[in-house]
Amino acid sequence: MSKTAGIIIIGNEVLSGKTQDINSTFLCRELRLLGVDVQRVTVIPDERELIGRTAARFSASWDLVFTTGGVGPTHDDVTIEGIALGFGVKAVIDPGLERRLSQRYGDDINPARLRMAMVPEGAELLGAGALFAPVVRMKNVYIFAGVPRILQDRFNAIKERFREEPYHLRNIYIKDGEGVIAGTLNDLLERFPEILLGSYPVLDHPDYKVKVTVESKSGEYLDQAVASLLEELPPAAILRVE
Amino acid sequence: MSKTAGIIIIGNEVLSGKTQDINSTFLCRELRLLGVDVQRVTVIPDERELIGRTAARFSASWDLVFTTGGVGPTHDDVTIEGIALGFGVKAVIDPGLERRLSQRYGDDINPARLRMAMVPEGAELLGAGALFAPVVRMKNVYIFAGVPRILQDRFNAIKERFREEPYHLRNIYIKDGEGVIAGTLNDLLERFPEILLGSYPVLDHPDYKVKVTVESKSGEYLDQAVASLLEELPPAAILRVE
Repeated sequence: MSKTAGIIIIGNEVLSGKTQDINSTFLCRELRLLGVDVQRVTVIPDERELIGRTAARFSASWDLVFTTGGVGPTHDDVTIEGIALGFGVKAVIDPGLERRLSQRYGDDINPARLRMAMVPEGAELLGAGALFAPVVRMKNVYIFAGVPRILQDRFNAIKERFREEPYHLRNIYIKDGEGVIAGTLNDLLERFPEILLGSYPVLDHPDYKVKVTVESKSGEYLDQAVASLLEELPPAAILRVE
Repeated sequence: MSKTAGIIIIGNEVLSGKTQDINSTFLCRELRLLGVDVQRVTVIPDERELIGRTAARFSASWDLVFTTGGVGPTHDDVTIEGIALGFGVKAVIDPGLERRLSQRYGDDINPARLRMAMVPEGAELLGAGALFAPVVRMKNVYIFAGVPRILQDRFNAIKERFREEPYHLRNIYIKDGEGVIAGTLNDLLERFPEILLGSYPVLDHPDYKVKVTVESKSGEYLDQAVASLLEELPPAAILRVE
């Protein structure tokens, strides 16, 4: 069985349409490449209790949980306090983080900036090489900043710890519409119940109408399933296999 | 009070990182412009029971619910059945939809395509001018196709029914970092507790470090809050107000 994951995107700016969330797309893609099965993404507002409740629920539901956003110095940055609340611990100043912030800001350190030294009690700091905004791990919850460049940098620094057996993927581009091939796909699933089978209609593409994806953690099982599908489809309907 | 909304994105292809979800961004932005307050987005797999449970929960939690995806003819298109299940009704063939599909496909109609004529019993069809894939409304749940062009077209056709008093928004671009202005923002919220205040750090922009957003449904209250903020900020820190 793959490890499962849930992703919590924290930010009013996403819900109000001001910002397009690209962090969940990044995490979904990267985790898939690592062989991790993302089962849920949720976008929630910057609200302490809600963040805590959601983090605790996700932590109990999936092997790995990732949060992004709400870790800066301003009034709407309440992720750390929320997650502390959710796990029934205090939010405390981490001495190492406090020292790093003091070095960075010198005399310009202020209460707002010091909030960035807060962690849920018992949390671990990861990627401590980073000058600021390290990843905070609270049990199986990995807390990331919301700025995409920082998130991506920090994730790449620690991602090997999440690596599982990878998924093997084949894309089949088909000239017939979904309505024509749906029966063939259903039959394939009955013969190969363990594959993950996707069917995605495309509008306005000159060369094909549907992209079919077939996935498995076993390369051999995937090969058999794809061969079987290609046999059942009319040869003229197959544009290409990748 | 604004109407509230929740959005359910249905699709393994999003969770597995194959497709970037742009539907939730579209809906969040459009609903905001209509004055509707989106409170949650969730991305879930193509699973009947889960879709039903989620739709029923969202329906009870928010005034409006939007789902995208899972309404085509293939094995993974289980949204209609899921939502029927969630509301404890049957999925039934809609005669009007069946007739339209028959006209479209003629002798090529098949059981897979006929699935696209299914609706939860008691649902209403909206945007019936559309040749296919109309919006299906089940109580306060609006069921959309996942193909962005279709979703956008159908949403635009019916969006006036969702219009509320709009939000007024002002963006203030600030040259100081968040750590410098956090105290000022907190003070502003104490004086104007009814505003929605956002603070978004930007990396690598030559001209400013933070975009501050101030919103209210009252234009006058917003003007007062923005004037008050501009008075408190050092004039040199303000790049521009939009």
